[in-house]
Amino acid sequence: MEPRKPYDIDSLTDVALRVFAERGYDGASMDDVARAAGITKASIYHHVSGKEALLERGLGRALDALFAILDEPASRDGRAIDRLRHIVGQVAETTLRLLPELTVLFRIHGASKSERNAVERRRAFDRVVTEIIGQAQRDGEARADLDPRLGARLIFGMSNSVVEWYRSGSLTRDAIARAVVAIAFDGITPRA
Amino acid sequence: MEPRKPYDIDSLTDVALRVFAERGYDGASMDDVARAAGITKASIYHHVSGKEALLERGLGRALDALFAILDEPASRDGRAIDRLRHIVGQVAETTLRLLPELTVLFRIHGASKSERNAVERRRAFDRVVTEIIGQAQRDGEARADLDPRLGARLIFGMSNSVVEWYRSGSLTRDAIARAVVAIAFDGITPRA
Repeated sequence: MEPRKPYDIDSLTDVALRVFAERGYDGASMDDVARAAGITKASIYHHVSGKEALLERGLGRALDALFAILDEPASRDGRAIDRLRHIVGQVAETTLRLLPELTVLFRIHGASKSERNAVERRRAFDRVVTEIIGQAQRDGEARADLDPRLGARLIFGMSNSVVEWYRSGSLTRDAIARAVVAIAFDGITPRA
Repeated sequence: MEPRKPYDIDSLTDVALRVFAERGYDGASMDDVARAAGITKASIYHHVSGKEALLERGLGRALDALFAILDEPASRDGRAIDRLRHIVGQVAETTLRLLPELTVLFRIHGASKSERNAVERRRAFDRVVTEIIGQAQRDGEARADLDPRLGARLIFGMSNSVVEWYRSGSLTRDAIARAVVAIAFDGITPRA
C-alpha cells in the first residue's frame, strides 16, 4: 500500500465534510475529524484554524458550484422555461456530484457567521430562480396558478432531498437528475 | 393571566418536539426541554423516563398520522392514480399540521431503537406508495419512464421539504398542499 499523501487544506476539508454530513455539523467535533483523517488534532490545526473554517470552505464549494450553474450560457440565454430546465437539471446533478458539500449546506440553520453567510447566498440563488419562474409564467410557459417562490422551494426541495437517501448504487446520477427534471416540469402523469 | 395547567405527558411531548425540531434531537438536552416547559427537570421525569421516551411518543404521532392516511377510503378504493393523488395531498397537509412531529421524523437517522423503528415504519409507508405508483404505471396513468421507488422518494422529498422553510404566514397550508400535488402530478408547465 502506498503511504497516504500528506493532507492539505482541500483533502482535510473533504474528510471534514464527510464527518459533518454523517454526524451533523453541531454533533461533529474536531476529534471526530482527526479520527476520520487518521492524524492528530494538532496536525489539523497546522492547516486550519478550527471547525468553522472547515465548514466555511465546504459551504463555499457548495455555493460556488451552485452559482457557477447560473453563469452557464444555457442558464442565461434563451427562454425562461428552458433556462429553468437547465438549472434544475444541473442543480440535481451537482447535488449528487458534491454530495457531502450539499448535504452540509442543506442542513445548516444559520447559527454561526459562516452559516448565516451561506443562508444568505442560498436565498440569493433562490431569488434568481424565482425570477426565472415568474418570467416563464409571463411567457405562458409555466402554470399561472403557482406562487413562483413556492414553486422554486418545492422543486429544489425535491432535488435537495436526494442527499437524504442517495448512496452510489443502482441508480445513476444522471437518471436521478433526469427524473427530478421530468417530475418538476411534467409531473408523474403522462402528457397526452 | 391564568395559571398554566399542569403538564401531562402529551403537553410535555408538545414542548419537547418543538425543542427537538429547533435544536435537533441530538443537540437538545432534557435541560433544554425543562427550560422550554418552564418546569424543573425532576418534574419532567415524574411524567416520562427520559429524552428518548419523548422522541418515541413524537415519532409515534407522526407515523400514526401518516398511516391513518393510508386507511382512508380515498387511499384504498378506486384507481391507483387517484389514490396516489389523495395520499400525496394528505401527506403534505399532515406535514404542515403536525410540523414539529414531522420535522423530527424527517431528520432522524436511526441512531437509537426508537429511531430505527421509525425508519422501518417510514420504509413500510414508502413501500405502499411505491406499489401504488407501480399500479398507476400498469394502468397507463403514470409515466412509464420513472422508477416507482425513485418517484415516491422525489415526491415525498418535495412534500417533506416544507418542514425546512414553512412558518405560519402568508401561504395557507391548503395552498401549499395543492401546489405539491400540482407539481407532483402535472409539473410546472401548463397542460395543453
